[in-house]
Amino acid sequence: MGLSYREDIKLPFELCDVKSDIKFPLLLDYCLTVSGRQSAALGRSNDYLLEEYGLVWIVTDYEVTIHRLPRFKETITIETQAMSYNKLFCYRQFYIYDQEGQLLVDILACFALLHPDTRKVAIIPEDLVAPFETDFVKKLRRAPKMHLLEESIDRDYHVRYFDIDMNGHVNNSKYLDWMYDVLGYEFLKTHEPLRMTLKYVKEVSPGGQITSSYQLDQLTSYHQITSNGYLNAQAMIEWQPIQK
Amino acid sequence: MGLSYREDIKLPFELCDVKSDIKFPLLLDYCLTVSGRQSAALGRSNDYLLEEYGLVWIVTDYEVTIHRLPRFKETITIETQAMSYNKLFCYRQFYIYDQEGQLLVDILACFALLHPDTRKVAIIPEDLVAPFETDFVKKLRRAPKMHLLEESIDRDYHVRYFDIDMNGHVNNSKYLDWMYDVLGYEFLKTHEPLRMTLKYVKEVSPGGQITSSYQLDQLTSYHQITSNGYLNAQAMIEWQPIQK
Repeated sequence: MGLSYREDIKLPFELCDVKSDIKFPLLLDYCLTVSGRQSAALGRSNDYLLEEYGLVWIVTDYEVTIHRLPRFKETITIETQAMSYNKLFCYRQFYIYDQEGQLLVDILACFALLHPDTRKVAIIPEDLVAPFETDFVKKLRRAPKMHLLEESIDRDYHVRYFDIDMNGHVNNSKYLDWMYDVLGYEFLKTHEPLRMTLKYVKEVSPGGQITSSYQLDQLTSYHQITSNGYLNAQAMIEWQPIQK
Repeated sequence: MGLSYREDIKLPFELCDVKSDIKFPLLLDYCLTVSGRQSAALGRSNDYLLEEYGLVWIVTDYEVTIHRLPRFKETITIETQAMSYNKLFCYRQFYIYDQEGQLLVDILACFALLHPDTRKVAIIPEDLVAPFETDFVKKLRRAPKMHLLEESIDRDYHVRYFDIDMNGHVNNSKYLDWMYDVLGYEFLKTHEPLRMTLKYVKEVSPGGQITSSYQLDQLTSYHQITSNGYLNAQAMIEWQPIQK
């Protein structure tokens, strides 16, 4: 396991939802910013990566366990640590703690390197990841396989201007926005997520629209985002009713 | 003019758009968080306001001048200052500076107090605003009058779960999102805002959909947001083509 890095944040209004919980897609986004600061501190910023190697990082999937969602005004500690890497993927953990040191959220993220123009995956250069002091492992970790939905409830979403980030594609956090939203206001007000597997398959470009589809089986929702006949992302989320 | 308060922020990835400029709706949001921190530091937090007076602040309108949009990774200083108040409104300035002290953005915001349940406006209690050391002025400042659009281009937007904030209504920044988005990706990629007047008329509730309408007259866009037959917000934005 590699060097770890920590930052605190007191959760502001704009990161929280109608229930005063953190907006989960924005927590994932924020975690990436924190790991970006660790990388920069170790001399491996995104600028350096692009200038020296002509590459960019993408997230391919997340596995998340939520013990309790952080809440408005709460100060949380985000700890992150590069765990291991193989030829094609880097694995990184994020741990979210409350001020008593209780683990609130555990996130395993898998990253890959892309040539930004061709969007082709690149082999991970050893000297790029050396400062993180992680181990090379031969084995490829397999993300849980998710099947295509057979009888789904669908909603179309227009891709909005502000959904697009500096990479010129829909920002990672928006896929989860669409997955949440299709479940409807009543469900989301009365349920909270416990576990989540999220897999990015193909980037969504500006303009046009996507379809957010889901199937609910007991308290597990299965999701897919599709556009122009392609699968863009999949997820599986376990929920529990909120205890009053 | 009252006490002023300043904070710096280095602009992270998630606050910036495809052009690497700050997402303007999120800047307005962030400014409110900054003024919230000034209020809390002066013993006038939103919690105090609700507990002691049973009231909440809302923004009724903004007048904005943009000299240059802050950019990704730039450190900006946000200065805010309560300016004056009358029976019904408080006026507050925000100034955004770059690190050389150049003024980038100038924002005048008008606030009112509401009873959160009835959504009725309340008279501003003198002891609530006393710590800000602003002057009472008798005169009501009039926000520029905007006419209803006659021949508009319209697009419907579904109100999303994460558009709703802790107040149970659509967050202020979303209206401007919808106003921007309806202009289309090509226009937004090639133009930047110079001046903006934004007026909130009636809050949008969760669920359902809104219509974002606009008319473009030369380089000024006129906007309205409507839902269920009501006018929710209006804006006027002056643009200029981006110089390469």
